[in-house]
Amino acid sequence: MDRSDQRVGTGPRRAQDIFAATLNLLAVQGYSGLTMESVAARSGVNKTTLYRWWPSKDALLAAALADADLLSFDIPDTGTLRGDLREIAAGIHRLLTDTATAPIAGAVLAAAPARPELTAIGRAFFAGRLERERPLFERAVQRGELPPSADPAAIMDALAGAIWFRTLLRGEPATPGYLDTVVDLVLPGTAQGSA
Amino acid sequence: MDRSDQRVGTGPRRAQDIFAATLNLLAVQGYSGLTMESVAARSGVNKTTLYRWWPSKDALLAAALADADLLSFDIPDTGTLRGDLREIAAGIHRLLTDTATAPIAGAVLAAAPARPELTAIGRAFFAGRLERERPLFERAVQRGELPPSADPAAIMDALAGAIWFRTLLRGEPATPGYLDTVVDLVLPGTAQGSA
Repeated sequence: MDRSDQRVGTGPRRAQDIFAATLNLLAVQGYSGLTMESVAARSGVNKTTLYRWWPSKDALLAAALADADLLSFDIPDTGTLRGDLREIAAGIHRLLTDTATAPIAGAVLAAAPARPELTAIGRAFFAGRLERERPLFERAVQRGELPPSADPAAIMDALAGAIWFRTLLRGEPATPGYLDTVVDLVLPGTAQGSA
Repeated sequence: MDRSDQRVGTGPRRAQDIFAATLNLLAVQGYSGLTMESVAARSGVNKTTLYRWWPSKDALLAAALADADLLSFDIPDTGTLRGDLREIAAGIHRLLTDTATAPIAGAVLAAAPARPELTAIGRAFFAGRLERERPLFERAVQRGELPPSADPAAIMDALAGAIWFRTLLRGEPATPGYLDTVVDLVLPGTAQGSA
């Protein structure tokens, strides 16, 4: 057997092709239509090879969501918390509206409530994002822009949640002006914040 | 023909039974499994009667989401904006976690990205909610708790979005302490808001 845990998340030489095929199939076929067979056919990588690296379709999907270049994002460092959060807000908005990524976000959203296994993947995905975003909030605390008691998870929930809610549930566009308003809303001591 | 627009949204004598059957089928079968036939069978109301009041399953679903007792909510008037938003946050959290309503919220979320017709229903549903919540924000402006320039839609997006995002996408519990944190986050000039 060749399925050591260490290998999950690293992957074989053609990992990016396999991840792209996985996310494309998820977007087009939905979670139930995503199978190891269809990924093998789409990526041209032998099914045995796939199983050598990922013991299940959930393990493969988790790795694809975590490591695919398509969903990669940079942690901004603009010098201010407002500037950093504006870049993050713009990135989330791109993810939800870009033709390459919107169907993936939609498919994850569509499958999540009914499927505990996908909830676990989502949880790991967003926990990983938050871990990478933490230094941004630590810098803001050091600069005095944020009290040490601030809860980065709650701030990111409100920022990301507002954009998801607006775009996917209310079906209204998140304009640049709207994104700025939401950033100011979750920032301490802004114009919005002083009555 | 007996399908005047005025009747959509009012409905026949047994409307609440029909709405309950509609939402129950949506929760259990998903949007694609919801049909006029299945609603007729579940509610015991003749299909012809259903079509007399609602010309399509989307019209029926829109009426059920707007008028079902199960999803009804009161607009709080506690005397402070913080108190009002805390009650609203608790209500949203109940909606997303109560065994009677959580599957409905999950099914709407699951169906929304892929189905423009459901997006239109969601848009109408959330626009109706926001219209009912507006007086709460007007009172807050009159009391000097909120600047007149504040955007109630953005505040509700951030509040509701954070709770939806946390509960359904991150799969983490929204504790009472978390709900208070998010309310304070979107409120102007709070402890969270002063670095």
